Amino acid sequence: MQRLSGTDALFLTMETPEWHQHIAGLTVLDPSTSEDFSFEKAVAHLESRLPLAPKFKWKLKETPLNLDRAVWIEDTNFDLARHIRRAGVPQPGGKVETAELLSQIMTRQLDRRYPLWEFWYLDGLANGRLATVVKFHHCLLDGMAGASLATVLTDLEPDPPPREIPKAKTSAGREPSSAELLARSVLPNMRTPMRIARYTAEAGRRGLALLEFNRTAEDTAPLTGVPTTRWNAEISARRTNAFTSISLEDVKKIRRKYDVKVNDVVLAICSGALREYLLSHDELPEEPLVAGVPVSTRSADDNELNNQIANMNVSLATDEPDPKARLKAIAKSSKASKAMTNAIRAHQIQSIGETAPPLMLNFAIRALARTGALRAMPTVMNTVVSNVPGPPFPLYFAGALTTGMFPGSVITETMGLNITVLSYIDRIDFGLSADPELVPDLWDIADGIPKSLKALMKAGKLGKPTKVEDPFGEPM
Amino acid sequence: MQRLSGTDALFLTMETPEWHQHIAGLTVLDPSTSEDFSFEKAVAHLESRLPLAPKFKWKLKETPLNLDRAVWIEDTNFDLARHIRRAGVPQPGGKVETAELLSQIMTRQLDRRYPLWEFWYLDGLANGRLATVVKFHHCLLDGMAGASLATVLTDLEPDPPPREIPKAKTSAGREPSSAELLARSVLPNMRTPMRIARYTAEAGRRGLALLEFNRTAEDTAPLTGVPTTRWNAEISARRTNAFTSISLEDVKKIRRKYDVKVNDVVLAICSGALREYLLSHDELPEEPLVAGVPVSTRSADDNELNNQIANMNVSLATDEPDPKARLKAIAKSSKASKAMTNAIRAHQIQSIGETAPPLMLNFAIRALARTGALRAMPTVMNTVVSNVPGPPFPLYFAGALTTGMFPGSVITETMGLNITVLSYIDRIDFGLSADPELVPDLWDIADGIPKSLKALMKAGKLGKPTKVEDPFGEPM
Repeated sequence: MQRLSGTDALFLTMETPEWHQHIAGLTVLDPSTSEDFSFEKAVAHLESRLPLAPKFKWKLKETPLNLDRAVWIEDTNFDLARHIRRAGVPQPGGKVETAELLSQIMTRQLDRRYPLWEFWYLDGLANGRLATVVKFHHCLLDGMAGASLATVLTDLEPDPPPREIPKAKTSAGREPSSAELLARSVLPNMRTPMRIARYTAEAGRRGLALLEFNRTAEDTAPLTGVPTTRWNAEISARRTNAFTSISLEDVKKIRRKYDVKVNDVVLAICSGALREYLLSHDELPEEPLVAGVPVSTRSADDNELNNQIANMNVSLATDEPDPKARLKAIAKSSKASKAMTNAIRAHQIQSIGETAPPLMLNFAIRALARTGALRAMPTVMNTVVSNVPGPPFPLYFAGALTTGMFPGSVITETMGLNITVLSYIDRIDFGLSADPELVPDLWDIADGIPKSLKALMKAGKLGKPTKVEDPFGEPM
Repeated sequence: MQRLSGTDALFLTMETPEWHQHIAGLTVLDPSTSEDFSFEKAVAHLESRLPLAPKFKWKLKETPLNLDRAVWIEDTNFDLARHIRRAGVPQPGGKVETAELLSQIMTRQLDRRYPLWEFWYLDGLANGRLATVVKFHHCLLDGMAGASLATVLTDLEPDPPPREIPKAKTSAGREPSSAELLARSVLPNMRTPMRIARYTAEAGRRGLALLEFNRTAEDTAPLTGVPTTRWNAEISARRTNAFTSISLEDVKKIRRKYDVKVNDVVLAICSGALREYLLSHDELPEEPLVAGVPVSTRSADDNELNNQIANMNVSLATDEPDPKARLKAIAKSSKASKAMTNAIRAHQIQSIGETAPPLMLNFAIRALARTGALRAMPTVMNTVVSNVPGPPFPLYFAGALTTGMFPGSVITETMGLNITVLSYIDRIDFGLSADPELVPDLWDIADGIPKSLKALMKAGKLGKPTKVEDPFGEPM
């Protein structure tokens, strides 16, 4: 038995049918690198790696009336079959159909009576490909410092030597492999949009020093007076996902040309797509949109999670029609925000979950949710753009080559759109998550991303965008 | 606004995460009879028929603290997209994979914030086939007297003339088509296992006159002292499904040979499969298993639902090793039960939902469930075997030929196995529903059914079973 940390307990308490607290990683696989890849092999692989992530065999025990934080207990009836799901991607098995299935998976809450994760095996993708989805509750990952299931599932070669499985029930003292070290730096970041949105919301409610800083600093994005879009509204229980991919080299070309950061180019590409989308609906706000951008602040010897991620609020300069001018404005705002972020660390905000009495917190949050007070909060950001640097070399799952990795991310009240960006080998993959009742045409935004890249390259006289292979196996 | 009937409200109140109150019909389709069958056409067809089932646009409004029965209100934000789901059947797309996907669909509760149904479109079945699943809450169908969505979705020809859509919000005054009349007589029966199990449980709790009758009547199956099997236990939230098909003509041959009823032959075939299954686990009880068999008692001019279905408890004579002797014992028990059923109608039992104050009922049922009292109830039947006569001619959905229809049925506490049998053209299709934590190897029972038929035919010197086409499109 182990009591949940205050933050983890907060994630549980705040979960409502509309406001899910689970996240997922979808991995597209090409099984042709393995002679005997199959559903059974995938499950066996999963099972063999499970001891490396002991928390995946823990389940919740919530205390009566929520008088205290819930505790983790070992699931003595643990049955892997309860966590394995299988489905096919509808024909023709492209990224649209894969995203549709991921949306269905994301729309459903996890069953709190069992360890809080599911593993989905999806076949029927184009070109013989398939996908796996690991879906897990935010409170399961939080505080795990990288020992997540997703982390331990991949290898750097198709047929790696067997991993040493530790005898201990926790993996605290284990020497991590190089693949794990890599994965630790990449995968835990996938959960940041949620946390950041939460921190920022918290900041908004508590009227922190952040506001004061913001009034006096120049060029930083506003924390009040952020415009509202169609997706900055009350969210429903449903989720929709869309994906797109562009060439990493194209982004680097733009970065070099304008002497900005890769992240600024990513933001400018997203900004162009969002601007065109809102223009086409005749809904572009006069004030520029503001993105929450998670940044890592973790030092090398720091393995605590509560101060490794901070948030920057960056203006997306959507009021600027010229792509070059927009990129420059974003880079300027980003630089100013970075300075602010260094001054005020996010961990000052998080402590509410650790210090407030759980009963009071439960009542307060439920009351806020019921009275709609959370919905009445001012918009503090329009979207999250989370840019996660991924491995520049191939990863394998049970022998099958990973051709792409896409998140099912968390959206929150008044922030019904999330863009998470992951680089992989020579490509940048975009995963968009939204509420379909607010953004029924999410693919229009996704499809606007390569167009936005094209416009930016054209403005910089950098030629045409490089054609990239589709990770879902669809012909170009 | 319309208040739920007491029975419908009871189905809502009794629903727990383990004890689902939804049912589903899976229809396998061969789209080659339609030139332009597609997902979009299927959805358009569904939409065009929706006005014939007005309750599918109603949603629940539960009263605070459940002080009174919930009411139905029109969902003024009705959005068809919320109810449409799409997935592929995993490869190779046979009946095993289709059943696996149906199990996933059945395991999830419906979202009470929207009209209580889902329509699933599943492609990727063998031989170019696909399937649809209509999943709906029991309380949605109850009292609808046949105006269910499933009822209005099929036609007798691939390209029927457009149906007349009534202007009125309810279909009470509408003239039903011949297809509807047919479907009304067939499809509503698919929900009977649940209701019957409930009635019987109710009877068990209340110690009705049934017990008295049973003590004095001869040859009837016992209502107390029913043996317990591995699946007569506490059920989990999970569901598993399995299917099999045999030739209708083979069953009729046996019926003629022994001068019994078709239903007796079906029971004997199930009995043989269950006996072999339990023997192989070395768990065959000494006492014969008892099946609950729903029978229709509705007269032609009677359109009330509350007395149209009754239950017979029939001995499955699983203590009898000889197939012929087993069939004869079942026929005898069945005849005696029929007489008893005619004497005591099920509607005497149902009235509790109509008369008890809702608040008291809520508390009482929740208390029973929480304390495990429901689980401590004696086993009143081992399984339900529901035999539904289906159409002897083809049905079409949006132009696509229906090649098979299989239920996802309800299982209940201490009755974790349901066998629903539907005849269609020249075939009898078996749909088995169970809790995988109690019956992880449900396919062994399903596969035992054709073997049981074979043994019965051999014992009667009736030759070998006829080969039947697989409705899922798999090669023989």
